[in-house]
Amino acid sequence: MTAAVKTNPSQPHHARDVSHWDLETDVVIVGFGGAGGCAAIEAADAGSEVIILELASASGGSTAMSSAEIYMGGSGGTRVQRACGFEDSTEDMVTYMMMSNGPQADEAKIRNYCENSVEHFEWLCDIGVPFKDSFHEERAIMCLTDDGLLYTGSEKAYPFSEHAKPAPRGHNLYVKGDNGGPLFMKIINENVDKRERITVHYETRALTLITDNDGEVVGVVVRQNKQELNVRARQGVILCAGGFNMNEDMVQKYAPKLLSGNQPIGNPGDTGTGILMGMSVGGAAINMHEGFISIPYYPPASITYGIAVNDKGQRFINEDVYHARLGQAVLDQPGDRFYFILTVDQYGDYEKLNFMGASIAGTGETEEELEEELGLRRGTLQNTLRIYNEDCAAGNDTQFHKAPQWLRQLEPPLVALDITPGRGVFVPYFTLGGLDTLPGGEVLDPQRQVIRGLYAAGRTACGIVRRADGYSSGMSVGDASFSGRMAGKQVAASARR
Amino acid sequence: MTAAVKTNPSQPHHARDVSHWDLETDVVIVGFGGAGGCAAIEAADAGSEVIILELASASGGSTAMSSAEIYMGGSGGTRVQRACGFEDSTEDMVTYMMMSNGPQADEAKIRNYCENSVEHFEWLCDIGVPFKDSFHEERAIMCLTDDGLLYTGSEKAYPFSEHAKPAPRGHNLYVKGDNGGPLFMKIINENVDKRERITVHYETRALTLITDNDGEVVGVVVRQNKQELNVRARQGVILCAGGFNMNEDMVQKYAPKLLSGNQPIGNPGDTGTGILMGMSVGGAAINMHEGFISIPYYPPASITYGIAVNDKGQRFINEDVYHARLGQAVLDQPGDRFYFILTVDQYGDYEKLNFMGASIAGTGETEEELEEELGLRRGTLQNTLRIYNEDCAAGNDTQFHKAPQWLRQLEPPLVALDITPGRGVFVPYFTLGGLDTLPGGEVLDPQRQVIRGLYAAGRTACGIVRRADGYSSGMSVGDASFSGRMAGKQVAASARR
Repeated sequence: MTAAVKTNPSQPHHARDVSHWDLETDVVIVGFGGAGGCAAIEAADAGSEVIILELASASGGSTAMSSAEIYMGGSGGTRVQRACGFEDSTEDMVTYMMMSNGPQADEAKIRNYCENSVEHFEWLCDIGVPFKDSFHEERAIMCLTDDGLLYTGSEKAYPFSEHAKPAPRGHNLYVKGDNGGPLFMKIINENVDKRERITVHYETRALTLITDNDGEVVGVVVRQNKQELNVRARQGVILCAGGFNMNEDMVQKYAPKLLSGNQPIGNPGDTGTGILMGMSVGGAAINMHEGFISIPYYPPASITYGIAVNDKGQRFINEDVYHARLGQAVLDQPGDRFYFILTVDQYGDYEKLNFMGASIAGTGETEEELEEELGLRRGTLQNTLRIYNEDCAAGNDTQFHKAPQWLRQLEPPLVALDITPGRGVFVPYFTLGGLDTLPGGEVLDPQRQVIRGLYAAGRTACGIVRRADGYSSGMSVGDASFSGRMAGKQVAASARR
Repeated sequence: MTAAVKTNPSQPHHARDVSHWDLETDVVIVGFGGAGGCAAIEAADAGSEVIILELASASGGSTAMSSAEIYMGGSGGTRVQRACGFEDSTEDMVTYMMMSNGPQADEAKIRNYCENSVEHFEWLCDIGVPFKDSFHEERAIMCLTDDGLLYTGSEKAYPFSEHAKPAPRGHNLYVKGDNGGPLFMKIINENVDKRERITVHYETRALTLITDNDGEVVGVVVRQNKQELNVRARQGVILCAGGFNMNEDMVQKYAPKLLSGNQPIGNPGDTGTGILMGMSVGGAAINMHEGFISIPYYPPASITYGIAVNDKGQRFINEDVYHARLGQAVLDQPGDRFYFILTVDQYGDYEKLNFMGASIAGTGETEEELEEELGLRRGTLQNTLRIYNEDCAAGNDTQFHKAPQWLRQLEPPLVALDITPGRGVFVPYFTLGGLDTLPGGEVLDPQRQVIRGLYAAGRTACGIVRRADGYSSGMSVGDASFSGRMAGKQVAASARR
């Protein structure tokens, strides 16, 4: 290799320019987060020699920074689901996830995920991930207790509840507080450490892929100790390098809607290099415009008794949905201001936490006074409240189908929280686009032909979850760990070159 | 070349595998529509030898199938704008187009377009494109008279009118009926024919690009008379092969929202091969999820007096916007049904034309009766009408800011048209994603590095127009002709290899 050759994730190197291999192995894994770790374990357990390349000086990725809820169910239920009295059918889980993903749904991937989800739960238990057989009743964004199971999506909300029997599928690690992610990665790390076939290179940046004359991926150029090394992969390369949330240029170019958010969620290494490396050898990046974007308006659960309105005083959603579904709905609405209307009592609950950082936009001793204080046209919010309160009295939200348990008349005095993105409220976001892959992780070109030797998992791939309005907590670590395993098994089953 | 080598737009060939060149020229242009024709004229006029490869047996592309309105203005106004009494400033045009494109706007491209738009008008006049100095007053989707100028976007509508002084910028060819496209391409064709430096190969399919060892694009593999030929491009290749509207798999994968439409608009050759060829050599395809999607609810203009409502009886847009802005707003709204509410008189006007094919969803002697017939909750549509009618009486649409000229109280009896996509109404669509390019047409990789030897124009590139809700008629042929010229000039200025 000459010094003149650029090492840019957008441009692969050619094997014919590689004068020697500095390292050789069966499987090279780029990134040691949840996906990379699970891929390594499975590949090693199937007999392959594995090198993991990790940019940081420790494993973790975005998984370690998360709550590590894991979305699992189907097949009658996981051990935890059954112990907590919930049956769960694979078809209900498939239906929910297909609806969640709308026209972007990848049915093959979703079916594979749902059909093997209980097996995945058991595999996680086998490698030492602990789940307590207890149910957390409260509506929460993350579980701060050590309970093992909670509802983490819109399963009980319209329209999902009309089509798929709800079941809680968010599995929370047996640990107090929001500490699931570090524990999960500690366990993965221990499992990696005890497998002799796996070698981890930390502080090692994957720069670009190496392809042979047939376009097959045969290795990776890496930078380690200020040197560029050529690493040969006899079976294949798995890209597990996260999404592109931390690459502002890429977000601007591909997913500009996310710029309505104010807090990118994820690991600083999520700069899109895995996706770019895949694209450089002809991989198709899909769903690149989509991302999770949310207004995390609960907890407390009691805020669900309130209503969200736009600057026309109109409701636009059933407020018992998952918070990212409300976040996306706000982005899709016309208007410049969005409010959450609560009674003073409900506001009292809210104020203790104010997780989303919303300020008070207005208060009113009467509906009319609140309407006026918010600068809404006379009669608009009043009419919305009149209809909503009548519907609450009748126990039937005729307009948006909020579940009866959340219908309670909103009696003045009332408080309006300002939930307008850009006006102080917390709006987290992350990308949901990535390389198109088969359920086994094989990276595909735009015509869905497999690019030989190349696999992707976790957020570098476009996985089981594709839309903010269909997101449920636990789908990211669920997908990372499951898709990592699938790719690890698949590459290990391929021939050595 | 051996028979075993696949010719797939997703996989470039390597120059080292090319045993001989069957054809050699300076500039190869893939596709002879509006963009390709204009590119060829400019490249030839700058001294380059040009080969155009056209799949069909005649020129035309999507331009010939269109109305060929051309969006032009700024710099004080085109000859037609000034003759009709309209001044137009470049800054107003830039502001309007920047707002139209939201976070996806490419400011460099928009500025270049607006600053050179009057020059583009004059160039079109010079090559023989005729425009009459007359203004068409009516609100129309296409101009069926031979008038030269009309409003074709949302310039006079909120919020655009608050930020940029409106001017009509849709230039219509001097020809009766919807015949602008064929005339435009006839003129382009004549101009191509009389330039000796241009050779056109019809019934010739571009299969894949040819790159050299540095990744530079040096030619194209084509199929002609059942033979594969290697065509060398000494200066560069310009991809002008249209969008991917006719490739259902690509639309499903990249722009699934367009599947809410029922009529793809464009040339059957718009199968995305130009974009795929660009991607195969590392070109970044951007904005791939976006497309024009519309409910073309006018003409007649008088429908603008009506209001659009969702199945909650809520208005959601100022109805004096461009039809694709309403189309996108419908897709963004919650709910299963959408209606356009008219008086019986307005319906009488509408019925004569019924361009959009909407059926009657309900009628009512009173507002209450209509509400009931549509199955809306009691009090919802009534309240919307009460507020709207009060606002009409006051001459101020407090809720959605429809311009005062379109405010007229809706007095029963009333008619509701069903404008729900999927229920019979005409919903045309086309893609707005493509290769990322510089204003000169140079194709960029995901890190915005130029891919040497490769250019794109027209819908193969991601041009000046990027969103349904910001579209104005005339932006497509405007972009095709202008971006074609830019690319033709740019490639002709590059060195011969």
